[in-house]
Amino acid sequence: MASINQNFLKLSAGYLFPEIARRVNAYASAHPDRAANIIRCGIGDVTEPLPAVAVAALHEGANDLADRKRFRGYGPPTGHEFVREAIAQSEFRDRGMQIANDEIFLSDGSKPDASNFLRILGNENRVAVPDPVYPVYVDTNVMAGRTGACDASDRYTGLIYMDGTPSNGFVPKPPSERADVVYLCFPNNPTGATISRGELQAWVDWAQANDALLLFDAAYEAFIRDESIPRSIFEIPGARSCAVEFRSFSKNGGFTGLRCGYTVVPKEVTGSCPDGKRIPLHGLWMRHWGTCSNGVSWPVQRAAAALCTPEGRRQMRELTDFYLENARILRASVEELGLQCWGGVHAPYVWLKCPDGLGSWQAFDQLLHASQLVVTPGAGFGRCGEGFIRVSAFNSQDNVIEAGKRLRSLVAAAV
Amino acid sequence: MASINQNFLKLSAGYLFPEIARRVNAYASAHPDRAANIIRCGIGDVTEPLPAVAVAALHEGANDLADRKRFRGYGPPTGHEFVREAIAQSEFRDRGMQIANDEIFLSDGSKPDASNFLRILGNENRVAVPDPVYPVYVDTNVMAGRTGACDASDRYTGLIYMDGTPSNGFVPKPPSERADVVYLCFPNNPTGATISRGELQAWVDWAQANDALLLFDAAYEAFIRDESIPRSIFEIPGARSCAVEFRSFSKNGGFTGLRCGYTVVPKEVTGSCPDGKRIPLHGLWMRHWGTCSNGVSWPVQRAAAALCTPEGRRQMRELTDFYLENARILRASVEELGLQCWGGVHAPYVWLKCPDGLGSWQAFDQLLHASQLVVTPGAGFGRCGEGFIRVSAFNSQDNVIEAGKRLRSLVAAAV
Repeated sequence: MASINQNFLKLSAGYLFPEIARRVNAYASAHPDRAANIIRCGIGDVTEPLPAVAVAALHEGANDLADRKRFRGYGPPTGHEFVREAIAQSEFRDRGMQIANDEIFLSDGSKPDASNFLRILGNENRVAVPDPVYPVYVDTNVMAGRTGACDASDRYTGLIYMDGTPSNGFVPKPPSERADVVYLCFPNNPTGATISRGELQAWVDWAQANDALLLFDAAYEAFIRDESIPRSIFEIPGARSCAVEFRSFSKNGGFTGLRCGYTVVPKEVTGSCPDGKRIPLHGLWMRHWGTCSNGVSWPVQRAAAALCTPEGRRQMRELTDFYLENARILRASVEELGLQCWGGVHAPYVWLKCPDGLGSWQAFDQLLHASQLVVTPGAGFGRCGEGFIRVSAFNSQDNVIEAGKRLRSLVAAAV
Repeated sequence: MASINQNFLKLSAGYLFPEIARRVNAYASAHPDRAANIIRCGIGDVTEPLPAVAVAALHEGANDLADRKRFRGYGPPTGHEFVREAIAQSEFRDRGMQIANDEIFLSDGSKPDASNFLRILGNENRVAVPDPVYPVYVDTNVMAGRTGACDASDRYTGLIYMDGTPSNGFVPKPPSERADVVYLCFPNNPTGATISRGELQAWVDWAQANDALLLFDAAYEAFIRDESIPRSIFEIPGARSCAVEFRSFSKNGGFTGLRCGYTVVPKEVTGSCPDGKRIPLHGLWMRHWGTCSNGVSWPVQRAAAALCTPEGRRQMRELTDFYLENARILRASVEELGLQCWGGVHAPYVWLKCPDGLGSWQAFDQLLHASQLVVTPGAGFGRCGEGFIRVSAFNSQDNVIEAGKRLRSLVAAAV
């Protein structure tokens, strides 16, 4: 009798973004006259065309596959050497971090990486997650069996939640109880908060002292415009022995539909066995890739490498500048409404406190129904997100200006 | 203290194909003068250019991403509707099988699918695998913790091995002991064996009677040229309640470097809970996709859909005809040498018995060193593969003709 993985049944609700899509589709079906008026600042999906260097590389990649002499079939499971080299050099070594080519593991995105990386870790690890945070960290640990049931406050037993609140600026400190694996995400999704070098150093020091592993999600690093804010955990001394980093081309290069990311796994990071033996995660992760994947699409790998050239970097900068200007506009609109907000600087998200008494999903429904504006309910990112919403700067400038105006209906609803 | 997944340490050796690559690279480094003479019939990787319709679609997909109005970001995690529709219609409904669009789950390949699908199944399932077989089935179950240690005969305790031998034509019968999840792969990798409609019906009947789940790998179905041989398990009455099927565009459309496959999960297939409740795997698999992936690269999805048009189907047929002619040539060479062989008809692999006394890896080394011919040692596919080698027809016709001649050194070695 084939049995299912019971852990899936613990999942408390549908994954956040499909649920948003469901509500938006239901609204559009019920109000076809207003469907065209909908502005989507919910899911963090890019809207602008790919950088020209990436488009050219995609065409070249397609031409390679049309030509017997240039044809590429199965590549190395963790990515072609020239791509790993381009990434390691331009993203790390050029910035003073010592990352070897073979410490870069190319993938089809950060979401699968964050999910797959759990496979090489023991199920007995005590996992700590920030709250609010990208829901994938929690859900994938639930599915893997590292939690108990979901309690009445929508938290899973067995997980350690690290509260992010206005009082700590949404930058949690290391937990007082034992944690073996800790997720960090800066610039943060959803709050847009960044972490200072000193705060991140404190995390690395804590991880070293406590023999913990930090899973650092740097998907939004390209939006940082202040050299004093770390873009990678590997800028911090000591991180090579206690951290891995997830990176993505989705937001800096607009690859959400193209699919490419990577994990950085230094050879010094180890995990323990019951007998005390230490095993490098690098080898385990390599074994995972060799067994479970045949790597990333060839034209996509060429496009990723193109982003790492000087011209590619210039075009990524231009693209992220565009979204940052949108974020600035959104933030200014929110401030003009007298609402408290975070992010929108060094990050493509503005995180705002709903007017008094309005819950996240109420605010979501209000904005959708009264103004045809789609945002992301903060509660979808965890209990501490209740009473907040996330507004994404990934849109046209016209839409962002209009979205800023439509946020007014939130204030109207509260009055 | 972060701990590792101990199950990885049970893995007995490196994954087969990286090990082959290692030996070939070592040989090439030691004998640079002969490196150019190497013919690779080891890994089952295609060598011919992509069908023209796929190349055109890749260019169109790149153009979409260069244009704000046509830009595509995140798509549905399980694939765009038009692609699922194209596949369900051309591969299934046009052939009389009732498969709905939303029973097609697009992915970046069969290897990740076979690995990921295990996540939705309980760890207490007793798993049966054919021997010899594609090593991914065994290794991913080891990594997931469904086995004990590897024994002296290179078999994992807890797994049920179904012997494939010349006497059963490498088509094993249902096991006599209890099995909950059973892998089948036809046309078979590595033996090239096909399964008759009657034999497959017997498997479906057994699965229904025993409440077992069949994981049917049909990656090589496009090579079947005899209408009486089933190309999909869903041609068999009853399969919708007990089977899922893995499909790939790697071998029929030459997508090994492009990465696209899919899993077919009928809504009737369920797994059990301890309380006897039945849960449809369809919903669990959907939840997996929503949480762990952002789907397949947009240009690749367009290319996959292009293969499902009448012209695309014609071009795939032409491509597989080419490899089948290679297989015929290889098989004829092997027969001429007086060696016993299987496959090479309705399959791109020829499976041959090494001359008396020669082990698989001995034959591999002999062919590499004496003739610069790379094949796959049968032992890499399981204990029953010892004493056999697999020769791949994925190469140019000139190389295949030459490979046929070089196999002679195998006979010479045995004399």
